[in-house]
Amino acid sequence: MSDSTAGPRVISSAGDPAAPGAPLEDFRLAPGFRAAAAACGLKSGGALDLALVASDRPCVAAGVFTTNRVQAAPVALDREVLERGPAAIRAVIANSGCANACTGPGGLDDARAMAALTARGLGCSPEQVLVLSTGVIGRRLDMARLDRGIALLTSPRAEPGAAAAARAIMTTDTRAKVAASRVTIGGREIAIRGFAKGAGMIHPRMATMLAVLTTDAGLAATPLQAALATAAGRSFNRISVDGDMSTNDTVLLLASGAAGPVEGRAGLEDFTAALTDCCTSLARQIARDGEGATRLVEVVVSGGRDEAEAHEVADRIACSPLVKTAIHGGDPNWGRILAAAGTSGVAFEPARLRLSLGPPEAAVKVVEGGLPLIFDEGAASAALRRDPAVVSLDLGRGTATATVWTCDLSAEYVAVNAHYTT
Amino acid sequence: MSDSTAGPRVISSAGDPAAPGAPLEDFRLAPGFRAAAAACGLKSGGALDLALVASDRPCVAAGVFTTNRVQAAPVALDREVLERGPAAIRAVIANSGCANACTGPGGLDDARAMAALTARGLGCSPEQVLVLSTGVIGRRLDMARLDRGIALLTSPRAEPGAAAAARAIMTTDTRAKVAASRVTIGGREIAIRGFAKGAGMIHPRMATMLAVLTTDAGLAATPLQAALATAAGRSFNRISVDGDMSTNDTVLLLASGAAGPVEGRAGLEDFTAALTDCCTSLARQIARDGEGATRLVEVVVSGGRDEAEAHEVADRIACSPLVKTAIHGGDPNWGRILAAAGTSGVAFEPARLRLSLGPPEAAVKVVEGGLPLIFDEGAASAALRRDPAVVSLDLGRGTATATVWTCDLSAEYVAVNAHYTT
Repeated sequence: MSDSTAGPRVISSAGDPAAPGAPLEDFRLAPGFRAAAAACGLKSGGALDLALVASDRPCVAAGVFTTNRVQAAPVALDREVLERGPAAIRAVIANSGCANACTGPGGLDDARAMAALTARGLGCSPEQVLVLSTGVIGRRLDMARLDRGIALLTSPRAEPGAAAAARAIMTTDTRAKVAASRVTIGGREIAIRGFAKGAGMIHPRMATMLAVLTTDAGLAATPLQAALATAAGRSFNRISVDGDMSTNDTVLLLASGAAGPVEGRAGLEDFTAALTDCCTSLARQIARDGEGATRLVEVVVSGGRDEAEAHEVADRIACSPLVKTAIHGGDPNWGRILAAAGTSGVAFEPARLRLSLGPPEAAVKVVEGGLPLIFDEGAASAALRRDPAVVSLDLGRGTATATVWTCDLSAEYVAVNAHYTT
Repeated sequence: MSDSTAGPRVISSAGDPAAPGAPLEDFRLAPGFRAAAAACGLKSGGALDLALVASDRPCVAAGVFTTNRVQAAPVALDREVLERGPAAIRAVIANSGCANACTGPGGLDDARAMAALTARGLGCSPEQVLVLSTGVIGRRLDMARLDRGIALLTSPRAEPGAAAAARAIMTTDTRAKVAASRVTIGGREIAIRGFAKGAGMIHPRMATMLAVLTTDAGLAATPLQAALATAAGRSFNRISVDGDMSTNDTVLLLASGAAGPVEGRAGLEDFTAALTDCCTSLARQIARDGEGATRLVEVVVSGGRDEAEAHEVADRIACSPLVKTAIHGGDPNWGRILAAAGTSGVAFEPARLRLSLGPPEAAVKVVEGGLPLIFDEGAASAALRRDPAVVSLDLGRGTATATVWTCDLSAEYVAVNAHYTT
């Protein structure tokens, strides 16, 4: 599958090299939102490390957070803010270079101070500001630098634009990640536009990175949260880089309502579908930019009794280092794929498995009825060297399908991670 | 901890470079068992690829097998043999170079033929022979070569000895793995001696590789199986190289009874402890020889409410690629260790965590009460570069402890696995 899996609603996926789209610098958030970035010294070398997304008017906000037992201070703060007053959010302040995780009560104070400094600059209340942090765990934020940086963000010396904000939250990412979708609901055109970061500690079963999404749709907090949970479940929760789960993973969605309300069950479904498109584009960009990765890997498991079991099998294949290294080497080692599927706990019948490599229009069938076919090894190897590399396994149990995205595993992953803090 | 964790019962751990012990070539199985090896062309270059362990008299046997849904033909055969007649086993025939997995009904016929050829050579019944295979998945065995090879094994041209047998079952292993323990029960000295292989597709929650253990103790099938299940649960099921689970994992234990019966509950407990020692030595050797590994990593989680939760947390730490790459680089990135622990599902209180790096006698404390201490980064880095590298996390919830062994993750792991079959 190409990026057309994201569906016709995606009109721009700048930053995703496999998709047509406008240049990154032209990227804008949804109407009514503005973004800016600054360098305040949390990262070395004068790189952008602070991003602001602000709305002209109070927004309804929703969030999806890591399920890690060890949660960073900004995660705790954002949960609290969204519980108390999700309907009047004005801004998101985000820093890279320091995760503000494992920093105790002092770290929570720092996160609150970030919100307060931002609120002062924007002329709103601290309870209207959400906070994101990403970077090294266990170090306190340098609040003097953040103080100056947040002042910079609301000054003419800030670098304006969503592209700069997307770059400012990058850590080991090699590319900024932005996406947009558009949908017409009740005669009104709705925009959904956002950005994300994430290249390591990426694993399913939670919001797996940082993302800020904006829309001019009008929704109350409860349906907005439901839409985000559904969209994240089919996008960010379907990617894996290394099976690790961050302490900071957060997806935030801000809805201004400027384009008018989304009404009725059909309207909410259409909005959720468009939001899923936008999230899926970002999720695929994250998987493709996995640490040390050279290509996106798309694992499609069909023939499941339900989506959950198809997801479970796809997840095991996508998380297998042996499968990921084989794909890196273009080695059609189908036995590893079947062995990984077999660890899922799903009671499939090995003798009913069908496996093919490559996109549907040029798939190389390698296993039928659980046994290897005679296949062209050169063509199978070429299929695994494509971007995306597609692995399709049919369980022969039903009609449910699930797709999980990951990346190949290269020696560069080790090089990136062996010396991150020191 | 050094290899002395295996306890005073281990009198020889040849092949384990961290332990004192006799040279590999001097290694013997338990009295009454003999071993031989041959090269029959399943591996290229004339390497040993066929091993036989035979007993002078019928043995009681026990087995622990992979829980992968995709199981190799010899696994299916051995389960059947042990169900029907576990009390009169005469031999184990094992090949490397071909896993005989995903080979359908024909593969099961091949496994039966291996048993029949061996039985013919030894003058026993095929139902008295257990079969092991390891190597590439999805290829049929070359039965003509095996026929000649099995004939060789019972001829003067075979290479005699358990050391040769241990080498013959190696795949990507860089070292043969053998271990021995001795225990006195009811005034009788009992020997437990065996060998194992395994370097990739190593993951907890099952017998994680191939191992053949022999003892001259006398036990009935049921207590022998119980002893093996307990020992494997605390040794082979506590190691992880890459989180993958093989289709072929099998541990076999043959008990000849030549030294006399093990009687009573206390006798069984002593036997199980000695068996656990022997299995733990083999398990540690497998983890240390993980594909691309440069050292053994020992993750000790204490302060659990029960052993299961301590094991779960230790498992998550040991399976984290980010932790394993950091250890490879000597990077005391304790945040990754806490983050990995947080994915376990165990409801610990982050503010009660204590973490230290290095062996107990020279541990560097890095986290106390969930917060980083000021520590000597050079000493912490040196602790992670030791072999074994010890990571000790206290959950502060209770008194239960569990240890999991793994290895560091190097770029060499990728090099080994990117081009295995092609």
